[in-house]
Amino acid sequence: MNISSTFSGMDDTICALSTPPGMGAIAIIRLSGNGALDVLSSVFRPLKKSIKVPEIQSHTITLGTFGAGNETLDEVLVSVFRAPHSYTGEDVVEISCHGSVFIQQKILETLTSSGARMARAGEFTLRAFLNHKFDLTQAEAVADLIASNAKSSHDLALSQMRGGFATKIKNLRQRLVDLASLLELELDFSEDDVEFADRRQLLDTIESLDDELSRLAGSFKLGNVIKQGIPVAIVGKPNVGKSTLLNALLNEERAIVSEIPGTTRDTIEDTLTIKGVSFRFIDTAGLRLHSGDIIENLGIGRTYETMQDATVILYVFDMSQITADEIDELLEEFREHIDDPEKHFIMVGNKTDLMVEVPPHVARLFDIETVFISAKRKENINLVIESLLRAVNINQLADSTIVSNARHHEAITKTLSALESARQAIENNTTADLVAIDIHSALYHLGTITGEVTTNEILGNIFGKFCIGK
Amino acid sequence: MNISSTFSGMDDTICALSTPPGMGAIAIIRLSGNGALDVLSSVFRPLKKSIKVPEIQSHTITLGTFGAGNETLDEVLVSVFRAPHSYTGEDVVEISCHGSVFIQQKILETLTSSGARMARAGEFTLRAFLNHKFDLTQAEAVADLIASNAKSSHDLALSQMRGGFATKIKNLRQRLVDLASLLELELDFSEDDVEFADRRQLLDTIESLDDELSRLAGSFKLGNVIKQGIPVAIVGKPNVGKSTLLNALLNEERAIVSEIPGTTRDTIEDTLTIKGVSFRFIDTAGLRLHSGDIIENLGIGRTYETMQDATVILYVFDMSQITADEIDELLEEFREHIDDPEKHFIMVGNKTDLMVEVPPHVARLFDIETVFISAKRKENINLVIESLLRAVNINQLADSTIVSNARHHEAITKTLSALESARQAIENNTTADLVAIDIHSALYHLGTITGEVTTNEILGNIFGKFCIGK
Repeated sequence: MNISSTFSGMDDTICALSTPPGMGAIAIIRLSGNGALDVLSSVFRPLKKSIKVPEIQSHTITLGTFGAGNETLDEVLVSVFRAPHSYTGEDVVEISCHGSVFIQQKILETLTSSGARMARAGEFTLRAFLNHKFDLTQAEAVADLIASNAKSSHDLALSQMRGGFATKIKNLRQRLVDLASLLELELDFSEDDVEFADRRQLLDTIESLDDELSRLAGSFKLGNVIKQGIPVAIVGKPNVGKSTLLNALLNEERAIVSEIPGTTRDTIEDTLTIKGVSFRFIDTAGLRLHSGDIIENLGIGRTYETMQDATVILYVFDMSQITADEIDELLEEFREHIDDPEKHFIMVGNKTDLMVEVPPHVARLFDIETVFISAKRKENINLVIESLLRAVNINQLADSTIVSNARHHEAITKTLSALESARQAIENNTTADLVAIDIHSALYHLGTITGEVTTNEILGNIFGKFCIGK
Repeated sequence: MNISSTFSGMDDTICALSTPPGMGAIAIIRLSGNGALDVLSSVFRPLKKSIKVPEIQSHTITLGTFGAGNETLDEVLVSVFRAPHSYTGEDVVEISCHGSVFIQQKILETLTSSGARMARAGEFTLRAFLNHKFDLTQAEAVADLIASNAKSSHDLALSQMRGGFATKIKNLRQRLVDLASLLELELDFSEDDVEFADRRQLLDTIESLDDELSRLAGSFKLGNVIKQGIPVAIVGKPNVGKSTLLNALLNEERAIVSEIPGTTRDTIEDTLTIKGVSFRFIDTAGLRLHSGDIIENLGIGRTYETMQDATVILYVFDMSQITADEIDELLEEFREHIDDPEKHFIMVGNKTDLMVEVPPHVARLFDIETVFISAKRKENINLVIESLLRAVNINQLADSTIVSNARHHEAITKTLSALESARQAIENNTTADLVAIDIHSALYHLGTITGEVTTNEILGNIFGKFCIGK
């Protein structure tokens, strides 16, 4: 694999702002490359005259002034990491400066006119990959980790970054490599017409790989919603209290996070993190019609689309007004969603405050999980939260390896289809060389996940999506 | 000065996010206080098992995992600075983590539940001041440095942060201290009726101090506009090309900064940095009326207010249409602004492209500096820029000490008035004890600038304006 030739400039010393853009107390500008210390020498003067920049030891911090020539732009702290003990595996320098936008910009200008160039998106992490600091799944996990905004997606990314997923894939691939070796041995002796690889055993191995890969492929749906937030459609007739419920849910959570000043909530799309799981509440309020039967009131077409995309459907109704007929009609209409094993249908009986007779907290109404609340009085909101969490089955997250990356899912799907092809070839008593082709195809696709096999296109796709400075 | 008692919690270990808020490749969370390493011990596990957190040396960086108990929240780099060799003068720990908002928030939560508390605005810098790492003017300069977005304001803040201004003030104060000592000696021997302090010499010293302080007070107008941006009013009849000129000026500058990707321009109020000086162009385009004479066209009232606030007035006219009468009328109307020595009036003759006969580049039209340009063809825009820079007299900036802080200006003004009172007392042959009161008052006010004299109110005002994390 000669990536350097296509990913040109891999020998350059690169620089970028690594902290978020904008004004802050401090900002970090990162340099990486063989020339990092040379560049630093020309722009940094340690406060202690006895310290020579080229001699600064790894993992130490030096105070001094930054600026080209005699100019002083700022007083900075410089952290030095010597190859290979750095993020990229190259010499890395981190300049900690005062966080004005002006200083950040001028430091980058000074560095680029002193021999460094601006890093491309994800170039630090790309270099780390090329220098075998970690594999592709770990590199991708770095981006996921930075983007994650809830415990479940964070845990998923962290576990992947620490190599959990890579180890799993590498183990599976090793079993495929062993399989391929057996077949290759057979091909070497092909004129002798010997079968080194017992066909029954081959099929067993393929089947076992198929099982594990199918489970991984199946976990993608969950992995993806964890990453993007679990889509929840709140549906119901007008004035049953859908917005009040959403606000009550938001308040419940806000009380938890507001202890830390300066944290802000992403209110776009009403994303809400509950017990570390991110939920995306999809507004169907704008879709309602004002007359007619339930179905019309729900605004059939678009509400149905929303429900189609949702993992959880919360059907809210007014306890004090609902009739047996309405429930019958509702169940009839929503049958398809209720019966879909991949969807979770939760009924929420609101406005218990208007009831003379207080209903039970939770029941199974017509065999559907139903909770009874007063959104207005914020009563039993925790029951809705518990139902949401049960629907997602967060316990599942802790134990098993979950695929959360579309690229990995695609590669696994391709591996599965190559394995299926190999299985058919063996069952049809096809010659070893043809089976070997299928196994090699499976090996190829599985190898692209961790980067044991890679192409410039794959790398370009992955690292192009990173932010600059990572 | 016992600040600690009023600024409570100065013995606490504090923590805050020090990098800009939001998502980035990395973020820095800072801990400071006697307990910083204790707090760190309970949440950080170095990768090298041989490293013990309490034994980590100053100015070194350690890789490890962060999290309470057995939980791993992130892999982080930890920089340790041991007292007194740190920003605050206390033990300081900087945790460099992956820059997700979730991680930033969780790290702060973990630290606050492990013995640290959230830092108040400016508390790191307040502690640095209380630990004599620098004086008040330097502390204030840190905030100015972070907020500065142009070379001139940056240079001003940096010079102040490095102690330039403080040294000046301390020297002046020392001379006042000497004066006070002489007077006090006299008071000790007051019964002997001796005059240790020659009254003529006292007056000379006061006059010399008065000269220097007056110059400093006078520099505040410039210092303030450097900090805030120099207000420039672009005025002129409709369709003379005011917007085209502003766009041409913006383009000229944009070409310079756009080499660095990721930098953004603050377009609010059309602030524009030219050769390191920040100009605030004040839009008068919305003020114009559509008929009548020049004066009406300029929208008398509000345009006049704008001109009142502006340091520079650019009057734009259409070369191809202006008449001698219009110029007469204009000069008559603007006489007051033209004659104001604190304002700079520049005439810009636009649309030279429509002229058959090309005019000179620069002239003095009716004794006013006039440049001739084609904003449309971007011709001679540099002449406008040169005129703007001349009007500000940037050379003045390099050499002299400039007051840019309203608090300092106020203290200097109060010092001046105390000195004036002392001068009058001496001239009226008042007794030494009364003169001494005035000198002490001058000493007090001058002392508040650097913080040799301070009150909780002063400190509260200064550090309350800082951002959290600095």
